[in-house]
Amino acid sequence: MMEQFEPIPGGVLGLHDQRGMDMDVVSAARISFNYIPGTEIRKEDKELIRYLIQNSHGSPFEHNMFRWYVEAPIFVFREWHRHRVGWSYNEMSGRYTKLEKRFYVPASDAVRQRVGKPGRYTYETHPMGERVQYMLQANYDDAWRDYENLLAMNVAPEQARLVLPVATFSKMWATCNARSLMHFLSLRTHPTAQAEIRAYADQMEKLFAKFMPVTHKCWVEAGRKPV
Amino acid sequence: MMEQFEPIPGGVLGLHDQRGMDMDVVSAARISFNYIPGTEIRKEDKELIRYLIQNSHGSPFEHNMFRWYVEAPIFVFREWHRHRVGWSYNEMSGRYTKLEKRFYVPASDAVRQRVGKPGRYTYETHPMGERVQYMLQANYDDAWRDYENLLAMNVAPEQARLVLPVATFSKMWATCNARSLMHFLSLRTHPTAQAEIRAYADQMEKLFAKFMPVTHKCWVEAGRKPV
Amino acid sequence: MMEQFEPIPGGVLGLHDQRGMDMDVVSAARISFNYIPGTEIRKEDKELIRYLIQNSHGSPFEHNMFRWYVEAPIFVFREWHRHRVGWSYNEMSGRYTKLEKRFYVPASDAVRQRVGKPGRYTYETHPMGERVQYMLQANYDDAWRDYENLLAMNVAPEQARLVLPVATFSKMWATCNARSLMHFLSLRTHPTAQAEIRAYADQMEKLFAKFMPVTHKCWVEAGRKPV
Amino acid sequence: MMEQFEPIPGGVLGLHDQRGMDMDVVSAARISFNYIPGTEIRKEDKELIRYLIQNSHGSPFEHNMFRWYVEAPIFVFREWHRHRVGWSYNEMSGRYTKLEKRFYVPASDAVRQRVGKPGRYTYETHPMGERVQYMLQANYDDAWRDYENLLAMNVAPEQARLVLPVATFSKMWATCNARSLMHFLSLRTHPTAQAEIRAYADQMEKLFAKFMPVTHKCWVEAGRKPV
Repeated sequence: MMEQFEPIPGGVLGLHDQRGMDMDVVSAARISFNYIPGTEIRKEDKELIRYLIQNSHGSPFEHNMFRWYVEAPIFVFREWHRHRVGWSYNEMSGRYTKLEKRFYVPASDAVRQRVGKPGRYTYETHPMGERVQYMLQANYDDAWRDYENLLAMNVAPEQARLVLPVATFSKMWATCNARSLMHFLSLRTHPTAQAEIRAYADQMEKLFAKFMPVTHKCWVEAGRKPV
Repeated sequence: MMEQFEPIPGGVLGLHDQRGMDMDVVSAARISFNYIPGTEIRKEDKELIRYLIQNSHGSPFEHNMFRWYVEAPIFVFREWHRHRVGWSYNEMSGRYTKLEKRFYVPASDAVRQRVGKPGRYTYETHPMGERVQYMLQANYDDAWRDYENLLAMNVAPEQARLVLPVATFSKMWATCNARSLMHFLSLRTHPTAQAEIRAYADQMEKLFAKFMPVTHKCWVEAGRKPV
Repeated sequence: MMEQFEPIPGGVLGLHDQRGMDMDVVSAARISFNYIPGTEIRKEDKELIRYLIQNSHGSPFEHNMFRWYVEAPIFVFREWHRHRVGWSYNEMSGRYTKLEKRFYVPASDAVRQRVGKPGRYTYETHPMGERVQYMLQANYDDAWRDYENLLAMNVAPEQARLVLPVATFSKMWATCNARSLMHFLSLRTHPTAQAEIRAYADQMEKLFAKFMPVTHKCWVEAGRKPV
Repeated sequence: MMEQFEPIPGGVLGLHDQRGMDMDVVSAARISFNYIPGTEIRKEDKELIRYLIQNSHGSPFEHNMFRWYVEAPIFVFREWHRHRVGWSYNEMSGRYTKLEKRFYVPASDAVRQRVGKPGRYTYETHPMGERVQYMLQANYDDAWRDYENLLAMNVAPEQARLVLPVATFSKMWATCNARSLMHFLSLRTHPTAQAEIRAYADQMEKLFAKFMPVTHKCWVEAGRKPV
């Protein structure tokens, strides 16, 4: 029923639920009562959206909802959860439940080496991607074996998990609005963002553009900055 | 199309848009992927909601949206806007537009006198409600005349409005989620809240109970406190 | 003990308490443990602050505190309170206490008329400033008389205040950090902001520049935008 | 200069900076101008604080600052960062810098096993604590070796870290106010909280009680709930 994407190998992104469109932004800014869903957006409406974005009038972009279902490695969630304003999270916990045996292994051509000097780093495909994949997988297998051994010894799950790497997959519900989404996208689709979270953000941007095309277009034209 | 209420004379409250139901709370708490809208809520689901409320686990109540359309006097908006977390607002501005000639006059039996001692005040119907109505109306008429005179002299609207009383009606869009709504209701439906904002909050509670009956019931049973 | 300013006639602005300086921003960004208050700020520290501001890395600017004491008219507080993130407020209430007889009358050369067309308005000194002052004062005197009459009739103070204009002075404590302050200043020192709140914001900016001169300088050079 | 604590083996907690005391809460609630630091707190002041806490009037507790320096394992930070409102964070990043070889090994008598049934779990000291310590340490040694090997192969640090366990130590600055601190403490000093984060929270509570003894006392007496 819900479209589902795989931004990175093993990852899942779905737009669980969505409410609100460009016309809502216009109506919010004008505090219109006679709100008629489905109304065609006009030229002056588009200009209003452009004006709001260019002048940092962010509140009209908050009266809507994007609810995401996400499966991603812990190190991706760690960056995601730093977004505090206008974001709500519920993540599964490893305190009570046994986690799943799922770890992130980048595609061989997505293994990266860093080139350049501090402050000006860029990334290139690593020449030994398959070797790195193998090393990662071996580490994950060992960690999983340790985790299972600790559980078998009846160590509390909340402590047994200590051995699991930050590449372990977790799951969450994450809800935001168009304003907090634009803030997220401005940082996480940026070329300097880590490629793995960028893969999620890029997919989210496509869905944002689909549901609020005018807002997305104006945000891009205004330099993709927080509003 | 949208139901509309009149919590106080001249006031308007509408639930512009609503998204989310009890079953979403349950799914969020369990981070379920196989989310099936319309699923019947079961006994164990209700117990989970009760548990979440009683133990201050508030985040599962955030993945939903209530968008209110409100027309109320400025003194009501002033209390409303103190709710910062999980609330989004867009209010009409008197800086650029001429305001409407609409002021709040309480019903004659809603005019109150205060009885009792500091810290233990209670309110009773004022014996001269109609007289007070008349005095209020006379004040509003004078203020409106002053406002129009200042505008006629070409005084900037943002300064002409200085003479308007806090009983002047304004309009806003206000969006929240079930958690921030419960926080609002816990304070604004309380017997010590001012009757005018309580009239809005009471109506909002009815709509909350309609869309999320289990959550509402558990919140009431847990003492109507912030979650 | 505390310096006190009068941004508008009758208004008060004081920086009640302040904690944090440029060097804290640098230490926060570097997660330094060996934090030595009073350390001299170096060239590379300044460049780091500049980098943080230009790249929207706002969190290092949050580990500090500016606590303001403010007396201003209600219409100024209404704009102020729309700043929700990183701001804390406590305002006096007219529900329980009789308010003070203090209303905002602009200086005669601060009475404005609006010129130009919608969307491109500018403001000029109004040619009849003294006449406008007189009209405002007359309105305030009448409103105050009505307020006192209602109180004398034992109408509840929370209802008697309905007749008071939005020019009535109120008082608050408002606490923020350098990031939320920069957001406030970016909007409220802007030429399109209403002159009355701009007067407060301009004074606040001077105090911000005094306590965090490097941060302030970099923020100005980066275009005075939210960080 | 700054006191420093070790809530768990290898962990660090310091109260980097602190501003605000009980008397500030009282002054904020009363919007006092004549604020005199050092004023003795009186009986009626204490009663006011008690009243504010019992009636969920939280804003007077926000005009202050607690700035924490924390070194803790990643799994502790993950729980900490779920506190969004009234908390500011800056954490070191493993994207650019090599992390330190520091991992959390619980004291042998702090290794736990879980007893009881789902929903009613309790924890007891694990009978083979030393064996578990040994297993954890072996896992960490292997993970560190993998990490160094990947770095030696010039894999980007942001990817090399994938193999590190959630027991790896990280560092952060975390700033809050008394209200957001009480919210944190209500959840994280609770008997059901994981012992490792509870160790930090317990130490934080002691420092909170030291700097704001009346507020702390009233919060405890009111049931240690969010305000």
